[in-house]
Order: sequence, then structure tokens, then C-alpha cells
Amino acid sequence: MSSETPSCKVVLAKNIANGLLQEVHEGLKTLTKKPHLVGFLANSDPAARMYADWTEKTCHENGFRYTRRDVDKEEIEEAILSANADDGIDGIIVYYPIFNNRQDQYLQQIVDVSKDVEGLSHRYVFNMYQNIRFLDENVPADGSSSVGGTQKSILPCTPLAIVKILEYLRVYNTILPYGNRLHGHTICVVNRSEVVGRPLAALLANDGACVYSVDITGVQKFTRGEGLKKRRHEVEDLEGWTIKDAAPLCDVVITGVPGDSYKFDTSLLRYGAVCINFSSEKNFGPEVKEKASIYVPSIGKVTIVVLLRNLLRIVQNRAAGQAAGKV
Amino acid sequence: MSSETPSCKVVLAKNIANGLLQEVHEGLKTLTKKPHLVGFLANSDPAARMYADWTEKTCHENGFRYTRRDVDKEEIEEAILSANADDGIDGIIVYYPIFNNRQDQYLQQIVDVSKDVEGLSHRYVFNMYQNIRFLDENVPADGSSSVGGTQKSILPCTPLAIVKILEYLRVYNTILPYGNRLHGHTICVVNRSEVVGRPLAALLANDGACVYSVDITGVQKFTRGEGLKKRRHEVEDLEGWTIKDAAPLCDVVITGVPGDSYKFDTSLLRYGAVCINFSSEKNFGPEVKEKASIYVPSIGKVTIVVLLRNLLRIVQNRAAGQAAGKV
Repeated sequence: MSSETPSCKVVLAKNIANGLLQEVHEGLKTLTKKPHLVGFLANSDPAARMYADWTEKTCHENGFRYTRRDVDKEEIEEAILSANADDGIDGIIVYYPIFNNRQDQYLQQIVDVSKDVEGLSHRYVFNMYQNIRFLDENVPADGSSSVGGTQKSILPCTPLAIVKILEYLRVYNTILPYGNRLHGHTICVVNRSEVVGRPLAALLANDGACVYSVDITGVQKFTRGEGLKKRRHEVEDLEGWTIKDAAPLCDVVITGVPGDSYKFDTSLLRYGAVCINFSSEKNFGPEVKEKASIYVPSIGKVTIVVLLRNLLRIVQNRAAGQAAGKV
Repeated sequence: MSSETPSCKVVLAKNIANGLLQEVHEGLKTLTKKPHLVGFLANSDPAARMYADWTEKTCHENGFRYTRRDVDKEEIEEAILSANADDGIDGIIVYYPIFNNRQDQYLQQIVDVSKDVEGLSHRYVFNMYQNIRFLDENVPADGSSSVGGTQKSILPCTPLAIVKILEYLRVYNTILPYGNRLHGHTICVVNRSEVVGRPLAALLANDGACVYSVDITGVQKFTRGEGLKKRRHEVEDLEGWTIKDAAPLCDVVITGVPGDSYKFDTSLLRYGAVCINFSSEKNFGPEVKEKASIYVPSIGKVTIVVLLRNLLRIVQNRAAGQAAGKV
């Protein structure tokens, strides 16, 4: 190493996405027809439109069918119900916000579980928080390991994209058993939104990490207890803690603060930490490279591949369900 | 995970050794004759005799020639010089202690560099501390990366065995560039002997770790500086520090304290740390499994395979040197 060379490795989402695409392509080969994704656009948000266009492009480049349906707010519920009943549609994505209130959460529950590629159905969300990996597994009441399962529960795209990035970065240690592969890691997640931050903290803790979830309202600790004694995570409020207490303890820092006014305070970062930003803004300044061992500046390209992976999974789940005689 | 199952993964040296043996067997296939190791036994230490017997057995089981030569203390110098000059001998190992004083260090320098499978020659030791990986590389004076090199410098067996174990355990992150793969790890090495503890701390710091080297005389920190700015490690005395200050900071703890009276204080261990014991005694009590994510209780079987790997490397170095016209 030259004394002039910064030692931080910058990893681009594109490179991570390519590996996942290989897996998606392998999966596609086992199908007899192209999975068909329908995207409902019922707002005039340019960001939603851009995401829709990007989804369409990625679908077409990778052997998936995609149809965008532009509908009126007042027609969205009927349109989703009709798509639920249409055998020619495999997956449904709805671009939010539409009503920008609780009606949006109502709509999320309208999408049929078997077509919900975003994992927003209550059943998927419940499974994620409860650390239930399969739709058809039996979870013993005594808290011991689950038995069986062929239909994987769907995880929300952005949190799952971050899990896939941590796998790519070998933060997940594959020498440990599946489900415990983050054991020994201390992770800071800055943002605790219901859409990404909180589910992400839960997922990472369910996989064995000690997670500090930081928000303007305070700091929470998500863990499976000492020695991963618990089957799923538990949450503890850390009274009086701020990011200044949590971040220096962490070997991984993941930020997702919207808006361009926020910057993570690099002086709080451990030397050699892994840094990942999932905000569309740059939550880390360029000086992060002076301290981090690995820096992932954005994740969008991974998220879109994870969406396709979820679509594939949903098609596979339906086939497994039909084989088992229960659709 | 059941609440009854301890989450610590115990990894046995045998399993790690098997992977390395595969690599050794591949290397052997490229040779026209069996490498010949000669072991000089000039003491009556039963431990040395046992190590000699074990080396012989491992050599014979894995396609190496081994000859034990029992000699008198007074004849050992002549015996080594004669083996240096013997073309039928590829590698030399001497079982210490013999004189149990500085004469032993003198004898270590008598073994020809090209036959020193234990990496004890001053040139190898110097290269290890200076982070020079090849015998024939050019190290620029400005501290930038070295150029070229086909003959790998030999590393001492026990420290190298621990490096190989950390690679097996994926503590070395192969997504990072070679030479920086421990970046972000904080490692405690308990014991700072010249034979294992100090070279180990140097090796791990040269690979990018922050290492706390703990001994009864105090704590030293080995690092390549903030952001791995330095080409090789530097050492800092931490005045007033004890193991109580160092161990809780570490995600890896490696112990090698001789004698059966020492036990590492598990209350100092971070939850999820990786623990490795290279002492012939058990430096960790059974309660380590309540806190560690991975525990390696002993390393002897890896060390002996590393010895064979060094022997193979020495034979390959000689061939590379002959090809380059300088033996």
C-alpha cells in the first residue's frame, strides 16, 4: 500500500446487482413462461414515474414482462382487485404515495399475497418481524427451530437489498449457520421508518446482529439477546442515547435519511467500519473514505434486482403450492 | 434457534487442516520427487519427541519423506551444516530447546535459508516484520507497493497457522484487496513471546487489523495507522493499559499462554467475538461458548500442515530461483 492510496474500497451497486441477476437468470430458465409484472401508477410524482420506467427497462432487459397501468386514484382499488383475479398477471407493484394517508396502507393489504412482490402484505410483514422464513413452515410453540417449508416468505425490497449487499460484502459470515450469520456484528441503522429503517433493523437482528436503530426520536437496540438465546429479536429503548453513543460501537453503519440537509458525522465512525447509504441523497460526505474499509454510496440498482427476485420467488411459491395441493 | 441451543460454533483444527492439505496435495503433484524433511532431535524433551513423531506420521501420510536424526548437543552444529550441504535434503527442522539459551538463536541462523521450513532465519523474520512478502521483490523506498516477486518469503509455522485459521473463519474478508483483508477488525493477542505472540501481532497488523498485544509486562497496540496509511505496522505502548482495557474492544481474541494456571476472563469478552486458543493448555473455560460466535479450542493440526506447506514452498522457491538463474 502506498501512503497516498486511500485504503477504502468503494463498492458500486451495479457490481452487486450483477451477481444477483445471474441468480435470477438461472431461476428464469426453470420457468415455461415469462413472469408478468404489472405496475400501477396513480400519482403524478416524477420519482414514482422514474421508478416505474426503470422497473420496465430492467424487466425487459432480463426476460420479464412488464405492463404499466396508469389509473385514477378513485379507480386504483378496483384495478388492483381485477389484477388479483387475472391469471395473466404474476406480480403487482403499486407506486406510492397515492392518497398519502392511511388509505395507502389499506391499499397495500388489497394486493393478493400471492402477487405481492414488495412484501407489504401483513402476512409477509408479520413473518419478517417474527423471523418466520417460510409461508408453510411450522413454528413450534416452545421457540425451537422451525420445521420444513418450501415457499419462502417475501421480504420488502429495500431491506432485502441491504441484506444482499451485506452478504456480497462478506459481512454475513457463511461459516456460521444460516440465520446466525451476523453474530458478532454491531450495526447502526440511521432512520427508523416503517418502510425501510425498522424492518431492516429487525431483519439484521433476526440474523444475529446487535443493531442500534437511530432516529430523531431516540435510539433503540434490536438483538436476539445474549448468545442469540431468542428465536427472534427484541427491542429495547435506550433512554438518553443519541447517535453519538451508538455509532462509535458499530462496525457497520447504514444510513437512509431523506433530504439533502443530513450528513452522518464521520468523526463518530470506527476506523475500518463498513458504510452503506440507501438514501437517494448522499448521507456520507467524501471524507468517509478516510475512515471506512468499505463504502457503498447507493443501492438502487440492487433494489430493482431484488424486486425481480421477489417476482421470481412468488412464481416459484405458486408452483410449490400447487404441487403440494394448496394454492 | 432453540432457546436451549448454544449459538457458538466450535471449529476443530482437523477440519481446517483438511482444506490446507488439499492445497498441499495439489502442490505435490507438480513435483517430480518427494520433498525430504530432516528433523534434528538433540534433547530429551518428551514434548519435542512427540512433535517429531507427529511430524513423521503427517509427512508419511501425505507424500513427504521424513528422517529423524538424533544427535548429541555437541554435534548439532556440524550436523546442520552437513544437512545444509546435502542435495538430498529439502527442508530442515530443529527441535528446540537444545541449549535453552542464546546458543539456540545462534543455531537457528545456521540452518540454510533455502532449507529453513520454520521461517526462523533472520531474513525471513525481517521480511515478516517489514511486511515484505517475497524474497525477490523490490520494495520502493517511498513506501509504495512492492513490485514483482515469485519466491514467497517463509512465515513461522504457528503464526501462519493462525492466519490460515482466520482465513478459514472468513475473518479475512476476501472482498478487500490482498494485504488489507483484516481492515476493520480489532484483535487481542494474549502472549507476546518472540516465537509466536509478537510475530503474530505484527502479521495481523500488517494485514490491516488493529491488534492489542497483551503480556504481563503491559499492552501494546500494533496498527498500520489510521486508514492503513503505513506500508507496515508500527507499535505503540499503551501506558497503564491492562487486558481489561483491551479485550472488550476486540472482535477476535487469540490466546497462547503456557501453563495450566491461566484462564482468559470471559467477562471481558464482547458478545459474538471469535476466540482462538493456540496454547497447549485450555486458556478459555467452557463458558466461552456462552459469549463467542466461533471458538477454536486448539490449532496443532493446522500448524503441522503449515509446516508441510512451508516445505513445499521452499522446494518451489528453489525451482523458481533456478529458473531465474539465481539459486
